[in-house]
Amino acid sequence: MVIVGAGFGGLETATHLKDVPVDVTVVDRNNFHTFQPLLYQVATSGLNAADVAYPVRGLLRRYPTAVFRRAEVTGVDWDTRHVLLDGDATLPFDYLVVAAGACTNYFGIPGAAEYGFPLYTLRDATRLRNHLLGRFEAAAARQGLVDEGALTFVVAGGGPTGVETAGAVAELIDAVLRKDFRGALDVDQARVVLVEMGDSLLPAMRPGSRRHAAETQAGRRVELRLGTRVESVDATSVKLAGGEVLAAHTLVWAAGVQANPLAARLGVECGRGGRIRVAPDLSVTGRPGTFAVGDIAQVGGPAGHTLPGLAPVAMQGGRHVADAIAACVAGRTPGPFRYRDKGTMATIGRAAAVAELPWGPRLWGTPGWLAWLGLHLWYVMGNRNRLSVFLNWAWSYLTWDRGPRVIFEPDQPARPAPD
Amino acid sequence: MVIVGAGFGGLETATHLKDVPVDVTVVDRNNFHTFQPLLYQVATSGLNAADVAYPVRGLLRRYPTAVFRRAEVTGVDWDTRHVLLDGDATLPFDYLVVAAGACTNYFGIPGAAEYGFPLYTLRDATRLRNHLLGRFEAAAARQGLVDEGALTFVVAGGGPTGVETAGAVAELIDAVLRKDFRGALDVDQARVVLVEMGDSLLPAMRPGSRRHAAETQAGRRVELRLGTRVESVDATSVKLAGGEVLAAHTLVWAAGVQANPLAARLGVECGRGGRIRVAPDLSVTGRPGTFAVGDIAQVGGPAGHTLPGLAPVAMQGGRHVADAIAACVAGRTPGPFRYRDKGTMATIGRAAAVAELPWGPRLWGTPGWLAWLGLHLWYVMGNRNRLSVFLNWAWSYLTWDRGPRVIFEPDQPARPAPD
Repeated sequence: MVIVGAGFGGLETATHLKDVPVDVTVVDRNNFHTFQPLLYQVATSGLNAADVAYPVRGLLRRYPTAVFRRAEVTGVDWDTRHVLLDGDATLPFDYLVVAAGACTNYFGIPGAAEYGFPLYTLRDATRLRNHLLGRFEAAAARQGLVDEGALTFVVAGGGPTGVETAGAVAELIDAVLRKDFRGALDVDQARVVLVEMGDSLLPAMRPGSRRHAAETQAGRRVELRLGTRVESVDATSVKLAGGEVLAAHTLVWAAGVQANPLAARLGVECGRGGRIRVAPDLSVTGRPGTFAVGDIAQVGGPAGHTLPGLAPVAMQGGRHVADAIAACVAGRTPGPFRYRDKGTMATIGRAAAVAELPWGPRLWGTPGWLAWLGLHLWYVMGNRNRLSVFLNWAWSYLTWDRGPRVIFEPDQPARPAPD
Repeated sequence: MVIVGAGFGGLETATHLKDVPVDVTVVDRNNFHTFQPLLYQVATSGLNAADVAYPVRGLLRRYPTAVFRRAEVTGVDWDTRHVLLDGDATLPFDYLVVAAGACTNYFGIPGAAEYGFPLYTLRDATRLRNHLLGRFEAAAARQGLVDEGALTFVVAGGGPTGVETAGAVAELIDAVLRKDFRGALDVDQARVVLVEMGDSLLPAMRPGSRRHAAETQAGRRVELRLGTRVESVDATSVKLAGGEVLAAHTLVWAAGVQANPLAARLGVECGRGGRIRVAPDLSVTGRPGTFAVGDIAQVGGPAGHTLPGLAPVAMQGGRHVADAIAACVAGRTPGPFRYRDKGTMATIGRAAAVAELPWGPRLWGTPGWLAWLGLHLWYVMGNRNRLSVFLNWAWSYLTWDRGPRVIFEPDQPARPAPD
């Protein structure tokens, strides 16, 4: 069988199939799993890129039935039941799990795809980091750039990614770049503007947490623009609905994702944002032996709404699909997927976070922050990465410093690799 | 005053000027200092890229007289005494220190510049890592590539860089990739071939150490080709003088460097490899107030020979230049530079190295390796990086594993940055 994608959903499926008599091939374009919830910290020089990337082959070492194939999936031939890969290769399958994730949705806003900085892949994160630090270097060399928006960072989207990114950018500026550019730049001219369409941040949370998040961010140099949205963007400005024009060289796009374009090429029924519609057992209707899981799937929750694109949803879905395939192999009928809500959380900055548990309790400030740290540390893949993340966090907390604030833009491979 | 280059020579100069009444501007194209002696470990997945890169602004924080400017130096206007930067910017100077380092010297060998992988910058290191791991992934997808040379890694140059790289590639294959590709690839088909023009490895060392290095490497899957050289290279083969043709997708070029091309644009006298000829006090003849230090300078040693391009030479030279400038500022005449040889060392692999001290003693095997580890750990810039390097090494040693074996090829910045 074939699993497309080595994200949370795909890897959970693969590892939970270890006692099921099937040969598993995990296909991904990257040879590493990306721990997406911490990408914003890579973008803001809090973590190394390698801290949130774990080699898939290393993860699958302990699972002798699973192998990895580095390739881009281009489609599926349903008649012969083969997954089509780049370079004209194919992989036969009996069971297929589509866990290819999402990509950024710019909603057709003029300039957003060209000038916006998304934050969904590791490349996105290092690109944003290079750009952000590069704007400070450019402004230090030519002060006039400040008025032209070099130090104004607009973040679109008031969900967890937008809130965390805006908070981390503000903190990087105040705690680190202020010292780095002392004498060269008046860092107080830097602005972080968070734009959210709705009338509050973190719309998935309860009103008290929303207010707390907004108040904390406003106290930490993040300017809030609620009830408006980005109308257009170019290299030096961001225009908001209502007419405000911000001189800004940077728009971080955290306002939405849509299904990986692979979904549209599969000839299956898709719903909102191009997500694959799945049956209650996460199987794809009309495609026997096929399941979809994670951000590429539109999964219904207990109250009839669609479950959000979060790691816990993908991971629980992956475990369910592994069980469903085990049931099919054993000749049984899979049961429906039931999502157990574990709550939601978002950091706002140093010693500040909001966390809500599904049965009621909420944690704000330092307790919420510590809960966030512990939970994310627990879920980072690999003990070496876990240790490195922990040390980076401890270092940053104790020294008010950031480590890897390097502008490092590797070349494209110069040598044509024969394949 | 201006210091061109934030390598070992430039930074030592800048930091040792802290009590001298001069305003120092350090210019570098990168906003980070690269710890070059460990680049081969980045290339072979032993260390993160960030472990060997330290932000220059962070290093200069404690030196209030020094500021950093991220720019590419394109030349010097000697009449007006300005350093010319990219983007039509300039920096005036009274004193100038040229510490711009070196670049790879391919000696005009056909194909070497196009197909060879140098190992002098951080970009070089990550590009080689991506290529090396990518060849294993490609061979796992198509076995036929093995016969075509996908798993044959030729290293040109038997000096410390070549010896260390060949040893580290062999170790990566045997200790790590063997497990990663179990079932997918017969890793014993991989070859590491080290080509050296002279009749022994490490020609700067004494005969006993040379023999020990050669014997240790030969016992660790490194095939030696001594007394020959690379005659030409293309995408799939390396041809040696004498006629041997190796089917190989990879040629690591550790066979020589030459001065940064900036040297040729300064209108000063250059010697071997384009290096700037300097007076005994490291000043540049005919250019008052100008000094050259590190790999870009041709510095004579006590026995009349040219000092090698090593970090200790650059660092001692930097300290000397700081003293010389202090003398000039105080109206005194600078004395001559005297290099204190601290010995040479090279790792061969796990628990194996050769180290020679100038007054006689030599350390081979585990003692040499521990001396190497300790010395390099000591010289890595920044406590955070030091801790990270130490943990990576300890982790690799204890688990026989490597951390960051990820193929990560960031895009070029998609958004045009206004400057």
